[in-house]
Amino acid sequence: MERLALKFLVVNDDGIYAEGLWALAGALTPLGEVVVVAPDRQQSGTGPAITLHHPLRVTEIGAPVARVRAYSVDGTPGDCVILGLETLAGDGVEQVVCGINEGANLGDDVLISGTVGAALQGYFRGLPSMAVSVAGTAPRFDAAARIAALMAGQIAAGALPGRILLNINVPNLFMEEVKGVEVTRLGRRSYADTISEGDDGQRKYYWIVRGTARWSEEEGTDIWAIMRDRVSITPLYTDLTSRSQLASLEGLCPALFGGLCLRG
Amino acid sequence: MERLALKFLVVNDDGIYAEGLWALAGALTPLGEVVVVAPDRQQSGTGPAITLHHPLRVTEIGAPVARVRAYSVDGTPGDCVILGLETLAGDGVEQVVCGINEGANLGDDVLISGTVGAALQGYFRGLPSMAVSVAGTAPRFDAAARIAALMAGQIAAGALPGRILLNINVPNLFMEEVKGVEVTRLGRRSYADTISEGDDGQRKYYWIVRGTARWSEEEGTDIWAIMRDRVSITPLYTDLTSRSQLASLEGLCPALFGGLCLRG
Amino acid sequence: MERLALKFLVVNDDGIYAEGLWALAGALTPLGEVVVVAPDRQQSGTGPAITLHHPLRVTEIGAPVARVRAYSVDGTPGDCVILGLETLAGDGVEQVVCGINEGANLGDDVLISGTVGAALQGYFRGLPSMAVSVAGTAPRFDAAARIAALMAGQIAAGALPGRILLNINVPNLFMEEVKGVEVTRLGRRSYADTISEGDDGQRKYYWIVRGTARWSEEEGTDIWAIMRDRVSITPLYTDLTSRSQLASLEGLCPALFGGLCLRG
Amino acid sequence: MERLALKFLVVNDDGIYAEGLWALAGALTPLGEVVVVAPDRQQSGTGPAITLHHPLRVTEIGAPVARVRAYSVDGTPGDCVILGLETLAGDGVEQVVCGINEGANLGDDVLISGTVGAALQGYFRGLPSMAVSVAGTAPRFDAAARIAALMAGQIAAGALPGRILLNINVPNLFMEEVKGVEVTRLGRRSYADTISEGDDGQRKYYWIVRGTARWSEEEGTDIWAIMRDRVSITPLYTDLTSRSQLASLEGLCPALFGGLCLRG
Repeated sequence: MERLALKFLVVNDDGIYAEGLWALAGALTPLGEVVVVAPDRQQSGTGPAITLHHPLRVTEIGAPVARVRAYSVDGTPGDCVILGLETLAGDGVEQVVCGINEGANLGDDVLISGTVGAALQGYFRGLPSMAVSVAGTAPRFDAAARIAALMAGQIAAGALPGRILLNINVPNLFMEEVKGVEVTRLGRRSYADTISEGDDGQRKYYWIVRGTARWSEEEGTDIWAIMRDRVSITPLYTDLTSRSQLASLEGLCPALFGGLCLRG
Repeated sequence: MERLALKFLVVNDDGIYAEGLWALAGALTPLGEVVVVAPDRQQSGTGPAITLHHPLRVTEIGAPVARVRAYSVDGTPGDCVILGLETLAGDGVEQVVCGINEGANLGDDVLISGTVGAALQGYFRGLPSMAVSVAGTAPRFDAAARIAALMAGQIAAGALPGRILLNINVPNLFMEEVKGVEVTRLGRRSYADTISEGDDGQRKYYWIVRGTARWSEEEGTDIWAIMRDRVSITPLYTDLTSRSQLASLEGLCPALFGGLCLRG
Repeated sequence: MERLALKFLVVNDDGIYAEGLWALAGALTPLGEVVVVAPDRQQSGTGPAITLHHPLRVTEIGAPVARVRAYSVDGTPGDCVILGLETLAGDGVEQVVCGINEGANLGDDVLISGTVGAALQGYFRGLPSMAVSVAGTAPRFDAAARIAALMAGQIAAGALPGRILLNINVPNLFMEEVKGVEVTRLGRRSYADTISEGDDGQRKYYWIVRGTARWSEEEGTDIWAIMRDRVSITPLYTDLTSRSQLASLEGLCPALFGGLCLRG
Repeated sequence: MERLALKFLVVNDDGIYAEGLWALAGALTPLGEVVVVAPDRQQSGTGPAITLHHPLRVTEIGAPVARVRAYSVDGTPGDCVILGLETLAGDGVEQVVCGINEGANLGDDVLISGTVGAALQGYFRGLPSMAVSVAGTAPRFDAAARIAALMAGQIAAGALPGRILLNINVPNLFMEEVKGVEVTRLGRRSYADTISEGDDGQRKYYWIVRGTARWSEEEGTDIWAIMRDRVSITPLYTDLTSRSQLASLEGLCPALFGGLCLRG
């Protein structure tokens, strides 16, 4: 295969040492140049958060993958994308690839996923972006890395339609054990967080513990696919407008605001 | 008016001392019980982030508004909602009201807004939730507080359809100067962040500076309304699935994955 | 008593909401002007640490004690002293008074005490400074507040010799129950920290738990006094040079470094 | 030379990536086993601070020096020492060696130095400990690494008297350019910090900038030696009691506290 002259920014939320990050970087190097910009510590749960109130520090580190430049940042995954695109990676980044996350990022959880949050920041800045996660703890990353490279190549080849923001979840299996690949929509879940209360000897503390979520396991959703050992590929966008409620709210507006009410 | 027996959780992202928080709490006390749970410091830009990797500390403080219980938390706005609903506010919270933020939260920015992020966490947990912001720095909060109370009352009265997650932006004007109220969709913007590089004497630093965004000022969007001194009310939901791309991605799937490809 | 025209900077490490801080501020207001600058969250264990790598934010808050200006800072107690003296408190601060800490600060622990650390930063900047702590959890602050005000008045009157840095520990008793006041030296302790290991569902964590220290309870030490329900007043300075070892090290120098070795 | 069967805990405050840390680790491996435990990010200015209010995370990393185990910790240098001695390094650590710091740690500054603070935590726990720093920015570490190894060997051989806590500063020169070695006491300095005030577009900020200190350059002090391109070796201990003030304070006690006053 001819070597593609691509340039990737690779980011994660598990931190610069995470095995999944380097599995991803390694899988993309055959396709082009890879620049890694990753948080110096675990940043799960931060979503697309960015750091506005204080400056960030960057340390260039020796990457464990050949021909990869790598930077550690004391900020969020979103910060890493912005610093990467604006300065660290130099010009010409064509895709932002995020992960490989340890643990699935499904349904409503994508809004607090640092992996998906990083991809959102890339997408906001006009680049095709993708988040890649492996379901399960202590995951193996081979299948996910291969799928990430495959999709990155297809995006580069122009095979995918329009602006692309993909959320990819891969079962924790060897590639040959994977049962299928499915294009999905985000599933719904209800939340079952609990608070673990404790004491450090001096003061009470509260620790948020993510409960076993109750998923609505409809066919066609990401969670449905993952539970059947299939790869889930969900196209995302970023418009949270609830269009189905626009008309009814407009209908109510005059009752609420009288003459102040204008048609949207 | 008969006093409604409502119970509100009030959260913000500017921190427990912010004037807008107490303007909001004060406006809701005539409608029912108000419990404030807010971050101990500025948390703008954190979106719906939650803290999973370490415990949180809570301090009950004396509120500057009568009959309001108030708690300071060393975490994110999202953490405040979860702690508030799970333990601090006790049973029976009926609405989560977030703000009043200093500065508008419009378009794609809602995804990194801590104010909207807190409302998202309330909505995820099944409660009608609302984010309220005032455009402009050094804002006055009267009009926004009145509108928040009005909408809270309507939600309580069952006047609004279905599950409710509202993003409300108010121009920085007295109520009588407001030019209208509009139900809107989120506007699009393109990003123009820059990185301010500096040096603290020892090491280089990078500071993300949010640039003056280039907004696409289409009629019917939140930004369009705010620029015309109108109140913008946008119904949100949380499904980021790009439904318009589902079909075309499914069409491409066989070419990418062959027999592995399944119909979603 | 004639009102003294003094000016105090009051700082703590338990955070701006701590009851002991306001007990101290209240006790000093009869002596002169009081400006409170305190961390926005718990900062125990930080010693004299200062924040060099990012900027700090300051919020002026409404103090629960009349005629006191108060500022919340997102930094360490040491940061609060520096910001207070350099800018927030204005000119003319004559003493830095730190506390009242919940829990004793004795022996070697003074080096990691944020309360003593703040006093050190005041002393470094040429001002008489004092750290005040109450032994025991859930302490009452009356006796400590009275002793702090008494010592502050004496310092202001020039009654104490030379540069003053005092570490004051008060038993958790009413003033009339206190068994005595003693000028002490710092006691020695040996450390018995343990590490509590746990898991948050995803990753292992390590939590430092301060063990019950084994104190060497020699007569004349601060710990000896406190265990006898006496107030302990220890004059501190900041020179960690081990003078008793200087000569023997010099004697060894030629054997180690030959001709390079010079007399100090 | 026979290989010594020593075991070292190596810690720094510049973070796990800092060049000086690995220069030190490399210099000690010929003497025995080296375990590195270092902060995941810059921790200058933290002194001996330890983290009591939340748990710490540890990541084992691949060390750039052969036969060295290395761990990254999201805490302070003091935390690294405690975790290293209590659990990560296993039994049998004989010395704690801290650095090599980029920049001198002299005089009163040792109290806020994270490098010296880490050594203090080792000394508190009964181990010979040493802090090693190179004067100047962009330093070369060869001379400091050689001196650290030399001193570590001497300490292991029992050549140094009593409990040992050494603060070593090395000029930024090649070993052959060094003008001498001197056993010193800590110099005095006066502080000239300034506050840099700025604005991030939304809110004012304050940044502590360490000013050019005015040193009292007495002969025999650490600063005096460094300014003459000599290695400075200062024996430290941890007793901050100002013994010269004990008697005069005792003399004043009856006037202050009457019959409550007891002899120390």
